[in-house]
Amino acid sequence: MLSSQPYRGTRDFYPEKMAKRNYVFDTWKKALQKSGFVEYDTSIIENAELYIQKSGDELGGEQLYSFHDKGDRHIALRPEMTPTLARIVANKMGELRFPLRWFSIPRCFRYERPQKGRLREFFQLNYDIIGVEPGGADLEILMATINIFKEFGATKDQYKIIFNHRKVLDNWIEANGMESKKKLIYAVLDNWFKLTLDQNKEKLSTELNNTEIENIIKLTKKEGPQWDQYLEIANQTPELKLILKTTKELDDVDIEFSPTIIRGLAYYTGLVFESFDKNPDNNRAMCGGGRYDDLLSLFGKEAKSVGVGMGDVTWEEFLTNWDLWPKDIINKENDKVGLMPFSLEEVATMQTETIPELEKQGKKYEFDYDFDRSENKRWKELKKRGCDEIIKL
Amino acid sequence: MLSSQPYRGTRDFYPEKMAKRNYVFDTWKKALQKSGFVEYDTSIIENAELYIQKSGDELGGEQLYSFHDKGDRHIALRPEMTPTLARIVANKMGELRFPLRWFSIPRCFRYERPQKGRLREFFQLNYDIIGVEPGGADLEILMATINIFKEFGATKDQYKIIFNHRKVLDNWIEANGMESKKKLIYAVLDNWFKLTLDQNKEKLSTELNNTEIENIIKLTKKEGPQWDQYLEIANQTPELKLILKTTKELDDVDIEFSPTIIRGLAYYTGLVFESFDKNPDNNRAMCGGGRYDDLLSLFGKEAKSVGVGMGDVTWEEFLTNWDLWPKDIINKENDKVGLMPFSLEEVATMQTETIPELEKQGKKYEFDYDFDRSENKRWKELKKRGCDEIIKL
Repeated sequence: MLSSQPYRGTRDFYPEKMAKRNYVFDTWKKALQKSGFVEYDTSIIENAELYIQKSGDELGGEQLYSFHDKGDRHIALRPEMTPTLARIVANKMGELRFPLRWFSIPRCFRYERPQKGRLREFFQLNYDIIGVEPGGADLEILMATINIFKEFGATKDQYKIIFNHRKVLDNWIEANGMESKKKLIYAVLDNWFKLTLDQNKEKLSTELNNTEIENIIKLTKKEGPQWDQYLEIANQTPELKLILKTTKELDDVDIEFSPTIIRGLAYYTGLVFESFDKNPDNNRAMCGGGRYDDLLSLFGKEAKSVGVGMGDVTWEEFLTNWDLWPKDIINKENDKVGLMPFSLEEVATMQTETIPELEKQGKKYEFDYDFDRSENKRWKELKKRGCDEIIKL
Repeated sequence: MLSSQPYRGTRDFYPEKMAKRNYVFDTWKKALQKSGFVEYDTSIIENAELYIQKSGDELGGEQLYSFHDKGDRHIALRPEMTPTLARIVANKMGELRFPLRWFSIPRCFRYERPQKGRLREFFQLNYDIIGVEPGGADLEILMATINIFKEFGATKDQYKIIFNHRKVLDNWIEANGMESKKKLIYAVLDNWFKLTLDQNKEKLSTELNNTEIENIIKLTKKEGPQWDQYLEIANQTPELKLILKTTKELDDVDIEFSPTIIRGLAYYTGLVFESFDKNPDNNRAMCGGGRYDDLLSLFGKEAKSVGVGMGDVTWEEFLTNWDLWPKDIINKENDKVGLMPFSLEEVATMQTETIPELEKQGKKYEFDYDFDRSENKRWKELKKRGCDEIIKL
């Protein structure tokens, strides 16, 4: 006998769970459409080389679902959307009107050990503005992110957005004469709050002297002349000015500029940001994004871009943590009982002569076939809802 | 350099194409929700055995995308939804309240030669009523199918539904003493209109005598005592009576009872039906469904059911053939030009002091960054739409 369990690390969306998923997707869409984004999608199957070429990345390595099709093509299930986005933009470069404001909610696959917040099959909202210089579009994507939270009814007590800028950090490192140690500083800042202060110090001490280490620590605390210098550099970065000015004026959002947001060693070239659930039980980043200017280089083309990704699993945890699910979604299935489907009602209206009589008497009725009052629970429920009569078809 | 083409037999849904797909899916959903159905979904990855066990079926054979994951589990991308539906119903048998009215729009995969109307990756709407005896639910699923067509604005000149009943055909074959030849008769009727009359005769002549062959031909023409006998048997089949009576009264639908709808040799046990595009260029069935009572047998359980499937590719061809796409979907992308996204507008309102002045003067304005009137086509389009001024952020 076959097992009826789903494949490990994947989910069966029974109707109630599906209603929740639909609510999340629909609300993401609604918020992004208001912000001028349009939806795209692609096949989940891609040429495996699209991921393998980015050597050293685990997404293209041990986590990749790849295999050969019956024509011996080496194919893969997409582990993320960005390489695919690059492919389809490159493929119609001449026909598209830039900047593109595009979003998608791709189903993605990663072979990893299933755990809280991580599955083998998940959905990841991606939204990107493509083909536009740094500046206004970076602010726009931050605002679009905030509008997503607002569309779900989330308030500033529930989430926080933290942003940084790679150019500011680079310039600060340079101004403090640590250019040659940039890689180490990036790596340590990227994990700053995951380790203890002593552990961070120890890591930095492999290349930095004591003064330099103290400078870094002051910077992460946003204190002293180190932080003043960082802010001064930030205010002299033209593409960041509008962002700093605007975010300061947002009363209803907790948004912070901080040198500790790095987002790995990957392709980001300017703004980087993440959002966090303020509930300490859910401390993974809820979304991450930033400016990446070499999106299309795999295909020998260029389009400067800024984009964000967020996963459905973490997002659902956030909504559950803060009780942000609308009540009518949770109860929807229960309300269906005793509600006769349109198609059946149509049939019934044609086939029964009892209705005019019942209506004259002011009685409430429902339709059903194969209905046995004595053993059917539904009759009790219908009575509770004020139903007087069942019309059997 | 990597190719930027999609994998063979799959589609990239650029925004305009995605808007069309969304329109189809949303309209399917709307129609089915009105008919009391609720949505479910699952992972696209299943245990490969789920398909391989049905030996002899090409879906579980040469058309199956199957491979081993990194833990050496033999897995497959679903080629159809019905085995998965059986799995998830079997898995929660005790918790579910029957009958279920469930629908899903799964992404499915079949390794075949891509051609008109057939792709390697496609979507297939499935809707089923599960756990209910033959009769009312069969009619309900026919009505739900009609309501889908109506929801798209299709009229009786554009599509046709043809239904048959396996029990009626079985009884008619028996009444004419051809029980032992049933398999051949089913196989020939299943392809009746795909071959010439002579070809059909030749096939039948391997087992049937001349009188029997003439009886079959008369039956397919719905003529003579053969057809009268068929109708008489139909009217004595209790679970078909309500269907025959109701469908006769539908003035706005072209629906026909005919012995030539068979739907293969597969698992159907009662009602079978298909719908057709009346445009002769699109002569494949648009949907097919029927009563199948052994859905859960793979899992050692039982739930009598009736269900339908229809593919997105054929459906889109139908809408295109009859020009049933709403105009605002096709033009949606073009209308976006000059429409400033909400998120940017919010920023702009905070950051510019020019707006009150322009409004006093009754002028229309738009926002943008990196905007150069001299070379940008957008300015011309905006002017055409009555825009007086661009506010640069």
